This record gives sequence, C-alpha cells and structure tokens, in this order.
Amino acid sequence: MKYSVILSLVFLLISSCKDSGTQSSSMVTTKDELHNALTNAKPGDEIVLANGVWEDVEIRMTSSGTKDKPITLRAETSGQVLIQGESDLKLGGDYLIVDGLYFVNGHSPSNAVIEYAVSKDSVANHSKVTNCVIKDFNKPQRNLKDLWVLFKGRNNQLDHSYLAGKSNGGPTVRVDLAGNQNINNHHKIINNHFGPRPPKGGPSAESIQLGNSFTSMCPSYTLVANNLFEKCDGEVEIISSKTNFNEFRNNVFYKSEGSLVTRHGNYCTIDGNYFIGDGVSPNYGGIRLIGTGHIATNNYFYNLRGQNFRSPLAVMNGIPKSPLNRYIQVTDVVVAYNSWVDCTSPWQFGVGTNVSQKDVLPASEIRSARPIRTLMANNLIYNAKGDKAPIVAHDLLDGIEFKNNIINNQGVAFEPSDALESKSFTLTELSENIWVPSTDFPDVPVYNGFGFDEFEKDLFGVSRKDNNAVGAIVGKPNEAPSILDNGHYGPTWYDANPSKAEPKTHVVNPSMNLADVISKAQDGDIITLETGDYEIASSLNIDKTLIIQSGISDGSATLFYKGAMRTPLFQMNPKGNLTIKGVSLSGDMEQYAFASLKENMSSKYDLTVENCNIETFDYILKAYKYSFAENITFNNTIFKNCQNGMELSEEKEDKGEYNAENITIKNCYFDGVKENVIDYYRGGYDESTVGGTLLVNNSTFSNCGAEEKNGILLNTYGIVNVDISGNTFVDNNVKLIAQLWGAKNNTHSNNKINNSGKIAVEENLKLNLLY
Amino acid sequence: MKYSVILSLVFLLISSCKDSGTQSSSMVTTKDELHNALTNAKPGDEIVLANGVWEDVEIRMTSSGTKDKPITLRAETSGQVLIQGESDLKLGGDYLIVDGLYFVNGHSPSNAVIEYAVSKDSVANHSKVTNCVIKDFNKPQRNLKDLWVLFKGRNNQLDHSYLAGKSNGGPTVRVDLAGNQNINNHHKIINNHFGPRPPKGGPSAESIQLGNSFTSMCPSYTLVANNLFEKCDGEVEIISSKTNFNEFRNNVFYKSEGSLVTRHGNYCTIDGNYFIGDGVSPNYGGIRLIGTGHIATNNYFYNLRGQNFRSPLAVMNGIPKSPLNRYIQVTDVVVAYNSWVDCTSPWQFGVGTNVSQKDVLPASEIRSARPIRTLMANNLIYNAKGDKAPIVAHDLLDGIEFKNNIINNQGVAFEPSDALESKSFTLTELSENIWVPSTDFPDVPVYNGFGFDEFEKDLFGVSRKDNNAVGAIVGKPNEAPSILDNGHYGPTWYDANPSKAEPKTHVVNPSMNLADVISKAQDGDIITLETGDYEIASSLNIDKTLIIQSGISDGSATLFYKGAMRTPLFQMNPKGNLTIKGVSLSGDMEQYAFASLKENMSSKYDLTVENCNIETFDYILKAYKYSFAENITFNNTIFKNCQNGMELSEEKEDKGEYNAENITIKNCYFDGVKENVIDYYRGGYDESTVGGTLLVNNSTFSNCGAEEKNGILLNTYGIVNVDISGNTFVDNNVKLIAQLWGAKNNTHSNNKINNSGKIAVEENLKLNLLY
Repeated sequence: MKYSVILSLVFLLISSCKDSGTQSSSMVTTKDELHNALTNAKPGDEIVLANGVWEDVEIRMTSSGTKDKPITLRAETSGQVLIQGESDLKLGGDYLIVDGLYFVNGHSPSNAVIEYAVSKDSVANHSKVTNCVIKDFNKPQRNLKDLWVLFKGRNNQLDHSYLAGKSNGGPTVRVDLAGNQNINNHHKIINNHFGPRPPKGGPSAESIQLGNSFTSMCPSYTLVANNLFEKCDGEVEIISSKTNFNEFRNNVFYKSEGSLVTRHGNYCTIDGNYFIGDGVSPNYGGIRLIGTGHIATNNYFYNLRGQNFRSPLAVMNGIPKSPLNRYIQVTDVVVAYNSWVDCTSPWQFGVGTNVSQKDVLPASEIRSARPIRTLMANNLIYNAKGDKAPIVAHDLLDGIEFKNNIINNQGVAFEPSDALESKSFTLTELSENIWVPSTDFPDVPVYNGFGFDEFEKDLFGVSRKDNNAVGAIVGKPNEAPSILDNGHYGPTWYDANPSKAEPKTHVVNPSMNLADVISKAQDGDIITLETGDYEIASSLNIDKTLIIQSGISDGSATLFYKGAMRTPLFQMNPKGNLTIKGVSLSGDMEQYAFASLKENMSSKYDLTVENCNIETFDYILKAYKYSFAENITFNNTIFKNCQNGMELSEEKEDKGEYNAENITIKNCYFDGVKENVIDYYRGGYDESTVGGTLLVNNSTFSNCGAEEKNGILLNTYGIVNVDISGNTFVDNNVKLIAQLWGAKNNTHSNNKINNSGKIAVEENLKLNLLY
Repeated sequence: MKYSVILSLVFLLISSCKDSGTQSSSMVTTKDELHNALTNAKPGDEIVLANGVWEDVEIRMTSSGTKDKPITLRAETSGQVLIQGESDLKLGGDYLIVDGLYFVNGHSPSNAVIEYAVSKDSVANHSKVTNCVIKDFNKPQRNLKDLWVLFKGRNNQLDHSYLAGKSNGGPTVRVDLAGNQNINNHHKIINNHFGPRPPKGGPSAESIQLGNSFTSMCPSYTLVANNLFEKCDGEVEIISSKTNFNEFRNNVFYKSEGSLVTRHGNYCTIDGNYFIGDGVSPNYGGIRLIGTGHIATNNYFYNLRGQNFRSPLAVMNGIPKSPLNRYIQVTDVVVAYNSWVDCTSPWQFGVGTNVSQKDVLPASEIRSARPIRTLMANNLIYNAKGDKAPIVAHDLLDGIEFKNNIINNQGVAFEPSDALESKSFTLTELSENIWVPSTDFPDVPVYNGFGFDEFEKDLFGVSRKDNNAVGAIVGKPNEAPSILDNGHYGPTWYDANPSKAEPKTHVVNPSMNLADVISKAQDGDIITLETGDYEIASSLNIDKTLIIQSGISDGSATLFYKGAMRTPLFQMNPKGNLTIKGVSLSGDMEQYAFASLKENMSSKYDLTVENCNIETFDYILKAYKYSFAENITFNNTIFKNCQNGMELSEEKEDKGEYNAENITIKNCYFDGVKENVIDYYRGGYDESTVGGTLLVNNSTFSNCGAEEKNGILLNTYGIVNVDISGNTFVDNNVKLIAQLWGAKNNTHSNNKINNSGKIAVEENLKLNLLY
C-alpha cells in the first residue's frame, strides 16, 4: 500500500500545482469516494482507482467531459485494480474514458458488465473503454444471460482489451440500436483480444453481435478492426452482423469454431481479414453471407475444413419475402480479391437450401431464394492437394457471375469448370500460416466491375493501383504482419497465455483422505491411487484440471461410494476437468458415478474416463439442466449393472440448447444398463445450431435397455452429429437401437446386431420451431 | 417551317464559327440523322430536334458527356417537338440532358416512356430530363403496364416537367434500385407538375414510387422537392417510398386522392409539404407512416376529411416480424412542428390494425404490432369547429410520446386529453389555403428532443433559432408562398389549364344522322334531340364529353336501337363522358344500352343518365374487362324488362382491380330486370385498395332478380364502400338483397323490404390474398 500512498501524494501535488482549479486528478480508495468523485466530475478530471480489490462496486459515470477535456476513470496501475463480486460499469455521458480495469472473480448484477448507458435516455457518446480485461466474469448459470460489453449511444470505443471465458448466455459484446440516439453509431471495436470462449451448447454465444433482427434496418456503421479472435467457440457465429454498413477489417480469426456472418442487415464491408484453421477441425468457419450489398475483399483463408454453414465462404439461400427475423435473399454481393489456401470446398452457394424439408416446415421457413446479382471476381484458390469440389452448388448458380478467378487445383477437375481458370503456380510461406503466390500473373487480367476502383489496397495495405493482381495479396512481399503477436491485441499488461506450473503428482493410499488431496491439489496435478479399496463417504468435488489414476504397475484401485442416494461420487463443478484412468468405481445402486452440480454451473466441465470399471450405480452420468460439458469421453471402460446410463437430456425447452458438445464412447462394454443407456437431447428447429456430437464406436451393448420406456437404446433426438459404427448389439430388449436424423450429419455403419431391434433413419425430424 | 430553316442556318453558323471542332450544335430532321448524331455525340455536343411531329421514334443516348461538357438533346422550340406514336427515350451515359420534348398521342413500345438506362449494364448517371411534357401517353389498356419515367443509375434528375393523364397500370415515375449501380442514387425529382391522374380502380397507380419491397433495404437518397401534385387520384398512394433515406420537401399535394406513404424502407424525411383538401372529399389524404426512423416536420395540412388509411396523419400498425413485402412496425418515428388546420381526426395511430380478422387471415397478415418509440412533439392543431376525436387510437398509444403539442378545439373535449394542450388562439389567412396563428405562444415552450437541433427552419424557410414556436410556421409572416402558381412547376411553355371553348348546342331531329352529329361535335358540346322516334342502326361512339338531351319543352325523344346483338347503343370509348337526359332508350332484348369498348380502353369513361326510360335490353350496362369508369350515375331513371342490369365484374383475377370508382343510383325504378341487377366486383385481399363506391338510394326494385343464379339481387362482393339506404324492395325472388362486408365501409339503412329476401352483413369477408 505504501506505493499507492506515495502515488496519492504525487497526484495531490499535481492537482494543487495547477493554476486552474477546474481540472483535477484524484485518487479514490473507497466506494463512497469513487461515487462522490464521479458525481462531481468536471471536464478534464481524472479519477484514479487505487490498486487493490474493489468488491461489489457499481460504477456509474454520469457527468460529461468535452472533446479536449474528457473525464477519465483509470486504474492506479493498469491491471492491479480488480473489480470483483457483483460489479458493473455504466457510462452515461460524453467524452468519458475508462482505462486499465480488470473484471474477474464475479459477475454483473445487471444486464451487462460494461454498458455505454445508464438508462434509456442517458447514453454515452464519444466515450471509450481501453486497456481493460474481463475474464470469466460469468453469471452463475448459462441460462442467466448478460452482455460483457453493451454499446449504446454513438461514437464509443472498446480498444486494447482482453475478453475471455464467457460461458453464460449472451454475446460477449453487443451493439444495441433501438432508439434514434443509438443509430449511425460509428462505434469502434479495435485492437482487442477475444480470448477463448468455450462452446455454449446452443445459440446466443457470439463474440460480437451488432444489433438484432428487430433493428436490422438501422444504419449502424460500427467498425470492428484489428482484433484477434482466438478459440472463440461459443456458437456458430463469432461475429453476427445484424445491421447495415458495418465494417470488418484486418481481424484475425484463429482456430475459432464459427464464422463472420452477415446475419441481418446489409451493405457490410469485410476486408482484409484472416481466417486460420488447423487443417483438421471441421468447426472452423469463414465468412457466411446473407442479405444485400455486402462486399468481401482482400480476405485470406487458410487450412479450413468447415463445410456448409461453416464453409470458408458460405453464400446462403434466403426465404422468399423473408420475415424480418429469418433469411433475406443474397443480392448485389461482391466477393473479390480474396485468397483461399488449402481449404476444402471453400466456395459454397445456396447454403441452407431446405426445399426438401417443405413437408415438415412452414413455407415461411423454406430457403428457396438463391443468390442473385452476385459477383465473384479476381479471387485465387490454391490447393496443395487437388479438391474434387472447390465449388459446392447447393442450388443453381444462375444468379452468380464468375469473373477472372484462378485456381491451382493440381490438375483435378471440378464443376463448374468455367468459374475458375486453372493455373499452375506455387506458393511461398511468408510467415506462419501466410502463403503467397511465388509468381505474378501477368496473363490474368483483373476484372474491373462496378465500384472496383474503390478496392485500392491489398491485404497488407499495398496499393493495387500500379501492380494489381487477382487474390488478396499483390506483388511479392518479403514479410507478412505478425498476425498472432499478442502485442497487437488487448492490453500490454495482461498475459493471455501464461506459462503453466509443472504438474505435481500426489500419491494416495486407502488410509488417506482423497477428498482432502483433491481439494488441495493445484490445477493440472496428478493423483495416483495405490492399490486398494477406497471408501468414499461423500461426493468428490472436481473444480480444476486433475488426473486421477491407479498406480501404473497394477491398476487395481477401487472406489466404493457410500454417499447419500442421488449424489455423485465425482461431482463436476464449473471448470472441472477430470481424467480418470484405470480405476474401478462401485456404488450401492442408488448413487451416481458422475454428475454436474444441480445448479450454478457457471462454466463448462470436461470428463475423460479410460480403462475403468463402473458398476452398480443408479446413473453412470447425470447432467443437470443448464450444465454443459465440452468433452465427455469414455474409452476402454466397462459398465455393468446400472439402472441408468448417461443422461444429458434436460434442455427440454427446445431453444436449441444441449448439455454436451462432444460425447465419445470407444471400445467400451455395456452390460445390464437398464435404461437411458445414452440419452442425449437437443430440441428446437434451429438451422444454425451445429452440435452436439456423439460418437459410439467399437463398443458392445448387451442386456441393456430392458426398462427403457421409449424403446430406444441410444437416444439422440435432435443431436446434429451422430456416428454409430463398428459396434456390437446383442440381446438388448428394445424396439430401436437408435432413431437417426437423416438430413443432418447422422450416420451408422458396420454394426453387428443380434436380438436388439434396429437402427432407424428419419430424413426430416419434426422439431418445434425456435422462431 | 421557314423559321426553323433560319434557325438551322443560325446553328450551322454558330457551329462553324467555333475554333474547336470537338463540340457542335446540329439540327436533325429525320430519324436517321438523329440516330447518327446520337451515335457520334461527343462531350459538349448539342443535338437539336427540328420542330414538328416525330412519329415512332426510339431515342437512345449512349454516348457520355462530362460535367463541364454534357451532351444535350433539345427541342428546336420547347414544346414544338411532338414525340408521338410508339416512341420512347432511353439514356445510357453520363452527363446527358434532354430538354423541351412533348410526348403525346402515343405510347411507349417498351417498359417506359423515358428510362435512365438502355440496358441492365448501361445506365445513365448525372443526367437530366428537363422542361418536358408527357400527356396521356398511355398503353392501349390499363393492364398493359409501363412507367412514364424510370430512373436507374445515379445522380439523375427530372425537373420542370409536366406529367398528366396516365391511366394504364404502373407508377408515373419510378426509381429502380436493383443492382449496386442504382443505389445511393441521389436522384432529384424537382419542380415538376404532376397533373391530374384519374383513379385506376386498383393498385399500381402511384405518381411516384421509389423502389419496391424487394429493394427496400437499399439506401436511395432520392429527393422529391418543390413539385405540385394536382388531382393525382391514381390510387391510395400518391408517393410510395419503398427505400431508405429519401427526402420529400416542399411539395404541394392539392386535392389529390391519396397520401405520401413510407410504404417500405426507413429513415425518410418529410419536411415542409402542403396537403390541401376541400373540406368535403374523404379521399384526400396526408402522410401515412410505416417503418422506422422517419421524420415528419414543418408540414401543413388543411381542410382534409380523409380517415383511416387516408387520414391526415396515419401511423400504422405493423405485422410482427413482418415479411419483406408487408408492414414493418413503426419505430423511432418523429413527428414535430407540423400544423393541422380544420382537418377531421387528423392524428390516427395503429391504423390498419386487423386483429379482429385473425380468423380469416393468416398470422403473417395480422397487423398487431403497434407503433413504439414514436414521438409527437411541438405540433399544432386548429379546428374552427371542435372535433370530438382529433386523435383516433385504433390500438393502444403506449408506444407514443406526446410532448408540447397544442390544440384549439373550441372547447370540445377529447381523449387522451394529455396528448394535446388546449389553447385559445385564432388564425389569420395569409393566402388561399394558408392560415397561420395570429399570436405567438410565449407560454408554450418547445420540446427539444434528440436530434431536434437539426430542425433549423420552418415551413417558409424561416430560422427556428431565435424565435422558435410549435407548429409549422414561426413568427407572424406577412405573406405565404404562392403554392398553387403553375409558374413554379413544370415547363413554362405548357399551359396545364387552358381555357375551354364555349360549348355549342346541336339540335337534331329524327331525320338527321345522330351518329354523324356526335362524331363531329366538339368536346363539351350539347346535342338536343327534338321530339320523335330515332332509329339507331349501329353503336354510337362516345369518345369526348357530350350532353345528349331531349328538347327541353317536351322531353319525349326515343332512341330505338336496331344494331347487332351484343352491341351497345352507346359505346363508351376512352375519355368518353356522356350525360344523357330525358331520353327514352329501347332495344330488342338482345343488345346493350351502354357498354365500354371490348378492348383498348386506354382511359376511363364517365356516364350520367338522368330522367331517362330504359327498357328491353339484354344489358343496361356492360363493362368489359380492363375498362374503367370514374363515375357512373343513374338518377330519376326507370329500367324495365331487361335481361341484365349493370355488370361490372370482369376483374376476376383478384388483384384488387375493379371496373368503376363510383356508381350512384338515386331515385330510380327497376322492374323486371332478371339478373345482374347490379353486379359490381373487386377481388383480392388488399387493405390499401379503398374503392369502389356504390350508393343505392331512394330507389325501388320490383320483380327483379328472377333468374339470378347466385340468389343475390345487388352483388357488391369486395367493394369497399357500399351504402344501400332508403330503398323499397318488393317481390324480388332472391335469397338476399345484398351481402355486405361489415369490416369495411358497407352500410344499409331505412330500406323497406317486402317478399324480397334480406340484407346480410358478414364482418370479415374471405378473399384471396394478393401478396
């Protein structure tokens, strides 16, 4: 505290030395002082929050500065002012600055952590939040929605901030436009680092949402530029643009499970962005276009495997005369001077056509209006390995004009062949992920369409005037910008990727208190169980990353659970990530082996079970409503004599929510699991929810499902990705092994079935409409 | 021709005197010369069309001028170059000017008379048509649609032109926005005179349409300013704004049957316009608002009686999540500083609510979304006679904020009383139709809402800065602009209201050829039939305004029609306007008394029948498909022994079309008319078609309808305004006298009915959907 006292004195000195008393810099150390300082703030004032923890503080800035004399609220030391507990910040004046705050260990008591308004009539203008962090500042349960940053007013800014870990419902950042004071906003969201956002398991988890369908006619003019989106996996849309005239420039989308989507609104500019995948994941997307007049230029796509809604370029079909909240037809779109390197089927048109579902959907849901007046020009595709379908036509392409696009497809033929001119050329790696053609294309003229004169620069900002070329990059640059250098994004004081401590191994024997060891272990540690029988009296809470394993040599530790009925042996808490290997788990038929918390699951959990024996439980896994797991994996594990298997089916509101992103069951053996062997549910017709995922592979099910009321062994209703393959089903007294959804990514193969019902496929599942 | 030869020489002289040969002024006298001159035109060139008639000429301007050196095509003498026959004009270049042409006696062979494009890819920019007239240049039938002026491209202009008499389908002027080259167009439609446009009897007869629902998301920025709209009666929308950011300034809407409607699109400005009625007609409207963000300021409304869709200010209900082509909810609208003088129920909110019709309409047609975030501020209402309902709330007003509005309602109470502050003040007449408050309102502060600083001037352009006040006019001006002075609008060379010749009276006796006399009579003449029997061998064609009457003293002329079966005695041609008085008409039971042409009814007709006897015809009146009458009146007339009555029911396509605007039957006697006594039809659910109108008053029907197949005596299916009152129905063998439409303006009263069925009312008629 000494340091801060000295600082205070310095500030006092500075203040008293000023010849005019109208501006001041004042340190505040209590909530009352803060409140008073904010209430009495005058143009030019600087209010300094003393370092330390500020608990349960609702900050309201309601005075106004001027262009030359803003009012500033800043941390004494950036990052050393922790805003915790039930805290939020609301700005309701002009020319306000907030600098250096760190929101952590808490959540907002209101609709937003940071809001550029204090009431409907009092919004901020010309104000900015800079150099701040919001980390894991989640409402206690995912159904309790909020925003982390809510823009209102005009000309406001969020810059050089880091936001990561949002797991409850609601976009991370949203711009609201209802009310004339909020349109033509020219907000800027620049130089921020959007760190990992886990998948939410349902809609409403965008990193940025600009407006909504009800204000989709509003002119917005929001600029989103120079941001890094890293592992932003919340939902299928990373950025959901829902208003007009927004600009997306020079952002980097790095291994993020979603796309930049012009969901509503029109005339957006998407220029100079990077979309970087890993060559494996089918979940990393690119640009998905809906609506009118968008322009996508100078974008670079690398190593993407997303398809359909997640394809590198998805140009959607619309609904004829679409309702306000559905899919407007694509018209007057220009996609020019972009490069796709090593992407699979990068161009997809007519995405979302669902004419085949007209029997199960109302006419107002049928996307039959294909793109018209759409121009693809001066684009470049390079595939190190030839792609049989660089262009996927989900509907006719008669509304799309192709001009002067080139491809090196390594001689592999494709359709329509006249959309892309085949060229032989090589690439040079400029820096990690960035490849540019090694040659100019003197024989490939660029097409000069209406408005093309305005495409003056390339991806790196090089003029296209004298030495223009197809693709995102002209000429032969010597180096590329360091697009993944954290120094360009977020606050300099925050380390988004700190080096982790080496994990410790704790060796435990049956005489020790396992719960204690678990409680004291650090994130990432390993607990080794020596051989023996462990009696566990009450639930073991897992709220960090832990590996629990039997001693390597024998692997014969057994946990006998003696806890109360309907309690779990392992209780998965938010952020719990348990790997358990080589352990036997046993109950009294009345408890659960694994379960989430019943409530307040503010973040996801993960569970990996390998080489275990699990028997005599009421439930193997019970996932409560609003809980969410990203990965649940059972491998080489035997399940015997349980009343229920894995139940993840409480999201019955049919709003597209589900309880786990990925469930993997491999090389397992189920015997005598009487019902809910697997019960995994996602309800609601929602074409933009692309999860969850269930893989059941190489496993055996016998004598299971005997008490299953619905007669289906593996229930996957509404789950988008299901693969049941290579399994053996013997003597299961059920009507169906599974009822798959043909129109989605549900498959089955190579299963051996004996006395166990059959696997049925229904092409178009009937679901409740979400909208 | 001598004059033009001299002029040509002068031009030649001027041309040859120029030191640079790059610009020239050349007179053209043939189509080939014109074509060559246009093909070879260079910046700065002027091409002069020689005076005279240019027949069947398709003018294509495909060269481009520059800002300083436009290419001009002009009439040798403004108004003396007549473009006739199948002719049109298309502009496909930059900086083109067309000046002084007169389009008359013909029609376009294409989709437009004047189009600012020659093809999809070749549009005009920075080009203008000035000082021109298009008069009655109609396609031969109303179902053959075209535009008279079709804008494409950008920055084009139509100014000082006169357009009148369009009767076929299609707006008079339309701006097209499909294609990026046509958006952000900044077109100007200024200082024009939109002369009389007769009602069309169905939709698609706007004077100006800006875009359409499919391009309603486009930014348009079209300016419509300083135009006079005089008797523009085409349909319910005079101006239909269907795109964003259009401006309507200082226009005069004078006795025009329609409104300025923001039908689709948002953020339009409606500033300083005049809406002038006659204190009687319910058809003159004002401003009708749909959508978001419109601003209506400084408008002046006088003597209007329109209600509902046609009310002086109609703020509509929308459809929740409306389809693109239906009704977007009203949000964020500002109506400020306007004045309403002697208007009935001038403010109507929630117009178009049709929740009561949810049983007969699909959910996507129900307008239940009432206006929200809508502000009424600083407005003024004056009523010389108190109005019980200056505000009509068709739905709740909870989304509307009322601030600082005043009214002098002569002490008559109204609801909600807090929306308007009652004030006692008087008005002074500044000029015809223009009344201003005699006093300032020092005790009425103006409300200063968001963005109000931008409302800098009043209706007359006086600054609001220092001496602001509620209402359209600040201070006490001494004079008003001459808003009806034709000198401000259209070309100076054209007389829109020429004085008419005195009508001549032609006296005819039975030995003369009546057809000859009719053919030779001038428009407006009177033909007096002396007593006697006239045998008429073939149809008498009426293609002008004529009065045919019996000699005043005895009134006993009888026309015996001997023409072919299914031909009419009087054949109404386009523009035919017949008044027939005191004459007896008689047929052989196989012909018609009156009929339209079977085809090519390029304009409306009118028919008035007074004190006549009409008997033994197959039809009294037969209106063929696509024909249209504005007024059909039968007064004091006896109809006996006809197979059919008046049949106006051929528009069975259910697109909102109908065959007559007003049918009036007063003091008539029908006896022995066997079917179709009245058969008047309008099909298609279309809330914005507000006609036709049928009045049956004080008439007697006996022994009629004996062979009526549908059992209804007076068929009015789908007709919006029907009044059946004070009639006597005796011994008509029908099930129903009429089947009225309760939800619309259908009424009946004081009818005496004996042995004649009954009058039924169905609240919500089932109709086919138009959209």
